[in-house]
Amino acid sequence: MEQIKGGVTAALGFEAAGVEANIKYEGRMDMALVYSSAPCKAAGTFTTNVVKAAPVLWDKDIVENSPYAQAVIVNAGIANACTGKQGMDYCDEEAKAAATLLNIPKNAVLVGSTGVIGRQLPIEKICAGIQKLVAAKDSSLEAGTTASKAIMTTDTVNKEIAVTFELDGRVVTVGGMSKGSGMIHPNMCTMLAYVTTDIAISKKLLQEALSASVTDTFNMISVDGDTSTNDTCLVLANGLAGNEEIVAKGEAYDKFLEALNFVNTYLARTMAGDGEGATALFETVVYNADTKSNARTLAKSVVGSSLCKAALYGHDANFGRFLCALGYSGVQFDPERVTLYFESKAGKLKICENGLDAGYSEEEATRILSEPEVTVLVDMNMGSETATAWGCDLTYDYVKINADYRS
Amino acid sequence: MEQIKGGVTAALGFEAAGVEANIKYEGRMDMALVYSSAPCKAAGTFTTNVVKAAPVLWDKDIVENSPYAQAVIVNAGIANACTGKQGMDYCDEEAKAAATLLNIPKNAVLVGSTGVIGRQLPIEKICAGIQKLVAAKDSSLEAGTTASKAIMTTDTVNKEIAVTFELDGRVVTVGGMSKGSGMIHPNMCTMLAYVTTDIAISKKLLQEALSASVTDTFNMISVDGDTSTNDTCLVLANGLAGNEEIVAKGEAYDKFLEALNFVNTYLARTMAGDGEGATALFETVVYNADTKSNARTLAKSVVGSSLCKAALYGHDANFGRFLCALGYSGVQFDPERVTLYFESKAGKLKICENGLDAGYSEEEATRILSEPEVTVLVDMNMGSETATAWGCDLTYDYVKINADYRS
Repeated sequence: MEQIKGGVTAALGFEAAGVEANIKYEGRMDMALVYSSAPCKAAGTFTTNVVKAAPVLWDKDIVENSPYAQAVIVNAGIANACTGKQGMDYCDEEAKAAATLLNIPKNAVLVGSTGVIGRQLPIEKICAGIQKLVAAKDSSLEAGTTASKAIMTTDTVNKEIAVTFELDGRVVTVGGMSKGSGMIHPNMCTMLAYVTTDIAISKKLLQEALSASVTDTFNMISVDGDTSTNDTCLVLANGLAGNEEIVAKGEAYDKFLEALNFVNTYLARTMAGDGEGATALFETVVYNADTKSNARTLAKSVVGSSLCKAALYGHDANFGRFLCALGYSGVQFDPERVTLYFESKAGKLKICENGLDAGYSEEEATRILSEPEVTVLVDMNMGSETATAWGCDLTYDYVKINADYRS
Repeated sequence: MEQIKGGVTAALGFEAAGVEANIKYEGRMDMALVYSSAPCKAAGTFTTNVVKAAPVLWDKDIVENSPYAQAVIVNAGIANACTGKQGMDYCDEEAKAAATLLNIPKNAVLVGSTGVIGRQLPIEKICAGIQKLVAAKDSSLEAGTTASKAIMTTDTVNKEIAVTFELDGRVVTVGGMSKGSGMIHPNMCTMLAYVTTDIAISKKLLQEALSASVTDTFNMISVDGDTSTNDTCLVLANGLAGNEEIVAKGEAYDKFLEALNFVNTYLARTMAGDGEGATALFETVVYNADTKSNARTLAKSVVGSSLCKAALYGHDANFGRFLCALGYSGVQFDPERVTLYFESKAGKLKICENGLDAGYSEEEATRILSEPEVTVLVDMNMGSETATAWGCDLTYDYVKINADYRS
């Protein structure tokens, strides 16, 4: 497997575009299109929030019931959540407009929205945007980058990645883009993630691969504990790589899953590091846990703790907060077997051994915690299972961004 | 029932003191004593965190196994959590020192600590503090107030209250004090709460009343989602009011429970409003829910949401965030039946009706949200159960306080 340049247009047959539609923001792109010249198998995972945005309901229906998908239309600025029947009707209008212009069936069009909850989409602006998107679409790598910028809200960097690997002597490409910065928490974050691939794979296995991958990637990040109404991760596979269609698990499936995990881990990790107001990526690796599920729960509890996040922002090696966050995770364990390390480019330091202060140097700890990427290593001494979760520090700017997001 | 002046010394036979022991803070009181001239029935509820501080283990043992209790020694500054065997030995030394000076058995002495996790107590300073406390103890209302000030950490106000009611022609008093500001979340917050009463009641019913009361009071507050290692709520009942001892549920028990609920609700609510960095108390009342347990879960999810808390700080009527927080609580409901109101001294406003924007005035909403106490009313339209939860807004100062708590 090799990382290459590009994102959603890296795989064969995919085009993309980003345009200014003036949905809410002025002077910046706020609509994106991803299009495949060939019909795609589609798989998706969606928010677990009881309050589901209209595009989530729309896409879930397409993924489950449509024979194939071929395009995704995304807007930033307004989430089309808590918008009732009108919101569903607008999804339909969006899909119809795109289908007509792209000459594909309406039920091959997926839609996505992100932004303020509770407002209706300005449908005329959306439809005008779709016209511009279809006119602008292009298979260049730059077009993928443009699309990844157009779906940003409070994100400070666009997020895209692509990898290739060989299968049956053919080159298979998996590329993706995502947005997500606030309202992010395990069980899908306020995130939209779109992955495109030219692999040939059955719809059933595509969904299985995505579900498996999401558990250890997007579902392991947390910015603020708020699970959004709009979380969506879609994978489109158009089969143009020409490999023999994967219809059973085995070596080929594993290779694809590895590539998908790489792409999703990168996108998830980058979202966490770009958490609203964040100054640092905050990674927690729990190892030697008794079960995989407990390892995940423990790791997520640490990256989700306001006090751990604030300690990280203050470069303060307050190890008790980390033990405390493990302790209220709901997982049973013996605190007197836990050993903790802080690690970053500046070094690695044991701060807690068997539940007690390891007698570390505060100065060295502060130096390690001052790096832009910090890892907390948690040795549970209970078994052999590992999990990694990603979050960010809690800063003044998080509060600033969210105290008046709408203005 | 009548609210009266005072706190832990309001009930007959109770004395208290607060002194400077230089545990961590300079120039302020940081140790407190509560003492009863007569032996007390003791009941307690403790943190659910797997990582339990030494004083929690000590007090749990006393409450469960000691025939009676007669004194509580509390220090602020260091939590005596993650301190292993040494930490337990220090509890023993504390209790022994107090027992000798007060001429009571060691197993009648409860201890409490709050502050930084992971450091050992400076036991000589603690023992010197105990000597000063015993010398200073006094039954005046002022002594209770002094004790309530001595247990503060990042609290900005001391918290105490007392009520009286009649039973068998006798006046019964229930008084209490608490501290708690950060690391606060349902399932006991980082809080220490001490309630004293002169009622005569069986130990079994005292514990039942406390457990029932805590569910709807202290366990319904959240400041930051972090459940501490030290949470403790103790009730001491010395029987000096002279009522016929309550040994079965009935009218007398209900009267006591009402008084205990009043005291605990006041202390819980005040802790939430004094959340670290808070500018406003944030109350959420969920009503017409299908079950009591769901009503509690929904209310707690809203007051625990970083985005709702930040919206409140920004006086921003971003109703979608409130619906969103209900939606990820884990409770199943139909979003299209939910109606939301904001209420404060400045008025009451419907902001969301049947899951949709109610077409409210932003200006009026901002006026309502700008008050120091704001209530979100959530009508679930599913049944008849109600629950109330308390939290606070999320501010720059929360981050500031917690980014460098130890320095």
